[in-house]
Amino acid sequence: MTDPLRVVHKKTGNFLEDFKPGQLFRHKGGKTLTEGLFTLFTDFSMGTNPFSKNARYARAYGYRDLTCSPGLVMLVAFSQTVEDISENARANLEYIDMRFGAPVYIGDTIEVETKILGLRPSSSRPNLGIVHVQSTARKNIGAADEAIVMTWQRKVQVYKDDDSATIEAFAVDADEVACDLWIPPYDEGNDYKALAHLSSSGSYFEDLEVGTLIEHSRARTMTDEHIQLTGILDNTSQVHCNRQMIEVDPSAYVGGELIIFGGIPFVLCLGLSSPDIGDNSMGDVVYRSGRHTAPLFAGDTVYAATEVLGKSDYPDRPDLGLVDTRLLGHKFERADGEEHEDAPPGWKKTRIFELDRQVAVRRRSHYSG
Amino acid sequence: MTDPLRVVHKKTGNFLEDFKPGQLFRHKGGKTLTEGLFTLFTDFSMGTNPFSKNARYARAYGYRDLTCSPGLVMLVAFSQTVEDISENARANLEYIDMRFGAPVYIGDTIEVETKILGLRPSSSRPNLGIVHVQSTARKNIGAADEAIVMTWQRKVQVYKDDDSATIEAFAVDADEVACDLWIPPYDEGNDYKALAHLSSSGSYFEDLEVGTLIEHSRARTMTDEHIQLTGILDNTSQVHCNRQMIEVDPSAYVGGELIIFGGIPFVLCLGLSSPDIGDNSMGDVVYRSGRHTAPLFAGDTVYAATEVLGKSDYPDRPDLGLVDTRLLGHKFERADGEEHEDAPPGWKKTRIFELDRQVAVRRRSHYSG
Amino acid sequence: MTDPLRVVHKKTGNFLEDFKPGQLFRHKGGKTLTEGLFTLFTDFSMGTNPFSKNARYARAYGYRDLTCSPGLVMLVAFSQTVEDISENARANLEYIDMRFGAPVYIGDTIEVETKILGLRPSSSRPNLGIVHVQSTARKNIGAADEAIVMTWQRKVQVYKDDDSATIEAFAVDADEVACDLWIPPYDEGNDYKALAHLSSSGSYFEDLEVGTLIEHSRARTMTDEHIQLTGILDNTSQVHCNRQMIEVDPSAYVGGELIIFGGIPFVLCLGLSSPDIGDNSMGDVVYRSGRHTAPLFAGDTVYAATEVLGKSDYPDRPDLGLVDTRLLGHKFERADGEEHEDAPPGWKKTRIFELDRQVAVRRRSHYSG
Repeated sequence: MTDPLRVVHKKTGNFLEDFKPGQLFRHKGGKTLTEGLFTLFTDFSMGTNPFSKNARYARAYGYRDLTCSPGLVMLVAFSQTVEDISENARANLEYIDMRFGAPVYIGDTIEVETKILGLRPSSSRPNLGIVHVQSTARKNIGAADEAIVMTWQRKVQVYKDDDSATIEAFAVDADEVACDLWIPPYDEGNDYKALAHLSSSGSYFEDLEVGTLIEHSRARTMTDEHIQLTGILDNTSQVHCNRQMIEVDPSAYVGGELIIFGGIPFVLCLGLSSPDIGDNSMGDVVYRSGRHTAPLFAGDTVYAATEVLGKSDYPDRPDLGLVDTRLLGHKFERADGEEHEDAPPGWKKTRIFELDRQVAVRRRSHYSG
Repeated sequence: MTDPLRVVHKKTGNFLEDFKPGQLFRHKGGKTLTEGLFTLFTDFSMGTNPFSKNARYARAYGYRDLTCSPGLVMLVAFSQTVEDISENARANLEYIDMRFGAPVYIGDTIEVETKILGLRPSSSRPNLGIVHVQSTARKNIGAADEAIVMTWQRKVQVYKDDDSATIEAFAVDADEVACDLWIPPYDEGNDYKALAHLSSSGSYFEDLEVGTLIEHSRARTMTDEHIQLTGILDNTSQVHCNRQMIEVDPSAYVGGELIIFGGIPFVLCLGLSSPDIGDNSMGDVVYRSGRHTAPLFAGDTVYAATEVLGKSDYPDRPDLGLVDTRLLGHKFERADGEEHEDAPPGWKKTRIFELDRQVAVRRRSHYSG
Repeated sequence: MTDPLRVVHKKTGNFLEDFKPGQLFRHKGGKTLTEGLFTLFTDFSMGTNPFSKNARYARAYGYRDLTCSPGLVMLVAFSQTVEDISENARANLEYIDMRFGAPVYIGDTIEVETKILGLRPSSSRPNLGIVHVQSTARKNIGAADEAIVMTWQRKVQVYKDDDSATIEAFAVDADEVACDLWIPPYDEGNDYKALAHLSSSGSYFEDLEVGTLIEHSRARTMTDEHIQLTGILDNTSQVHCNRQMIEVDPSAYVGGELIIFGGIPFVLCLGLSSPDIGDNSMGDVVYRSGRHTAPLFAGDTVYAATEVLGKSDYPDRPDLGLVDTRLLGHKFERADGEEHEDAPPGWKKTRIFELDRQVAVRRRSHYSG
């Protein structure tokens, strides 16, 4: 080039000072659930619920086809909001009132919108503040089967673009969003018991005992595969995929290395819990709240446990019950020379995730021999 | 939590003392073959048979669509048996009489059952024994195209749960399982030769010479991708995916690190051999026996070779012939300062896999030129 | 084996002395675009064009379904030529006149043929020479929607099999290949503006200013995932996947380690540029020329920038314009103690890729607000 070019440094995403009360973002992209995406995320997480494994089983229960697990729906819907809401975030602080609606099938297209509910500047860190948002994901907009598939609120810590910008706190009401888990009707004429061998025999409503902490038997080591997994979700945040940016100034980033997108341990904990909690579930009704309590990095191994907090009848569905649980994720970190309870010598246990989770679980009386 | 929770440590899978003579396991889950799974495993293995690459080619030969390679069918079917049979295994010792039946297409759902044929305690290692099983995989149970797609026996070394448990040896007869490779009929009116450029020109029945050892030209380095690949198959064994468990006591595990699931080198050796053996194959008829002779770890590079042991006519199919081969896998390990035949200076060659394999191969006379 | 076997070392691919003037290769395999392949490559590259994300959006514009991005079409078509043309290459030197035609959908089958246009021995390196080829990719040969999807020339540096072989230079004319980008017609009755929120608002024809260099905001670190990605494309070149071969004699290979297949940074740069260049594009018309200017290795982070070189009307399409750009890729390498312009202290910037690229871009006047 003989003439010097004018250089334009593009930015993507919004910063703290960009958010306005009640502002509505209709997020770009949208995402059609392909079989490629379905397989990667359903199975990487070690989930075992047959509705997402076995089309014969799913159809016999009244679904149209294989269904996307709650974890996959969450990953796809949540990631759609990243560019507008959290591409310039430091951390996701809290998930609130995350509810599921219509089932999601391969071929469905998800589009998401987000309302800005609140903003609060940080008193101690003037370059940061907390944004409170409400997001709703719909499928197949304009088509006969348009439906809400998920809604949730979250609070996220976002950077200012201009550290000297003045920020006014605000709070507006959340919208009422009708989003209740769709469960296929119980069909008296259906021989459900002929399929009972395809799910675990020890995770019916009758098996889950209030006051127990179930340590799930499996764990899974994460590798730098997380970069690809996160990109495939259209989650564009650079802290998950730009290692060079971090190497220039590691001290500016949590842990000084690429941090794994929180959606990954979220869905992995759901999957690890599924032989004991999810195999005979008709779906997750609500995650009342959840948060990441420590970062996860490539090389860490994720374990999960579930506290069974309460049980109740499912309204108008004698074949089902509601189970209130707390899903916990943890990892072990080396602590040479130290002894810690609940960890092998030289290791300590670190909680990475917790999620208050209500699950709709089948009763053995109706579904098994 | 104010009240202490009762902690329940869940176990998954069976142990040596759990197996009974003739016991039948109908395995959980089942698995619908998605395009995501198809692509990952067909192509990662460097296989080249156009039936799994090119739908036009597959249909022209009389298949309904792209077909799953024998390696993919094996991986999916085998992995369904892991939780019940080998989640608590130390090693898979031998594959026996592995036969293929109906073709498997994308969208088919595989379900598997396993009969316990025998058990033998180890005399030298009292916490271990050998379990002998027979497994059969069906597709689309209850549908019009229900069919057996694969059957096999295997012997696997399994841990006791209680080291002091007393084990009685037993042996029962294997079932007769009708499982013969389905091959589309030869259609005189079909212009097969117009498609001949799409497969390799040097791997017809006429080209394979008894008494040769073919060193295949390509090799493939495995990375820690194996964790994800194994999980996506629903193979839940912790020795393939829980690195922290191994780091706590490396000496308790083969090689002191995550070991790659044997199905991975199995299918990779099949793929590496395919330009020379599989490109003009109508399928693998039987693997009479096979075994892993050394473990494989992330970072190892897999090579393959094929011994051509015998050739014979294919009954009632003058367009085909049967080729008996032995498929061999190997890797090279550093051996600084040493000289070994068949290896570069400072390296030694280690056999990792062998498989007696009968292939149905097309004759050039009918398909090319 | 009691009898010694005759050992046959198989070779795959052609060497410099194998190429003849005007020779036509009809490449083996062919490849059906599955949803698995689509998802892996569309999304790994961080591309954001909704035609490849959102089936509702693609259909509203007049495509049959989700469309494969130009990068994915290029990867699939190019890889089909590797075994015959460049399996034994040292480097790919130049892409020339790469043009796109019919849209490619999931389920389409691509087959490719290549004509040998020229050959020139190297004067300085007697074991090498340059091969000049012209390749054309068709979809669905023999079906109602058979069409040319892509055509291109390239120059590639190939090894001799026999270093003493004598090579005659030659050059023949390229074929005229009718391959023009298919763009769905502009439909006056279509409410395109109702979809405008799904693509970026700042990348219409009106927004792209001649004389600017746009530094795209995102970057992506590559890992050893490249081995799997390259294999899944059926690119069989050993320099991308056989680490042991390189470890035996690192000095014989560029960088002394596995080199990332050039198609990977090619498509990654396209993807990184898409929020600013591709989101409102109807497709890439032509890549007049392109080349890799430095190798890429696992661990490198890829950045992209676009020079806007010219703008012109699109013939007979007042809703569109043509934008001539140069797409640039770069990475940063450590340069401890050094200071370089355009790089953080202790780093230097290395250009890895450049591509002269003409894009058909929508005008805001017709599609937004």
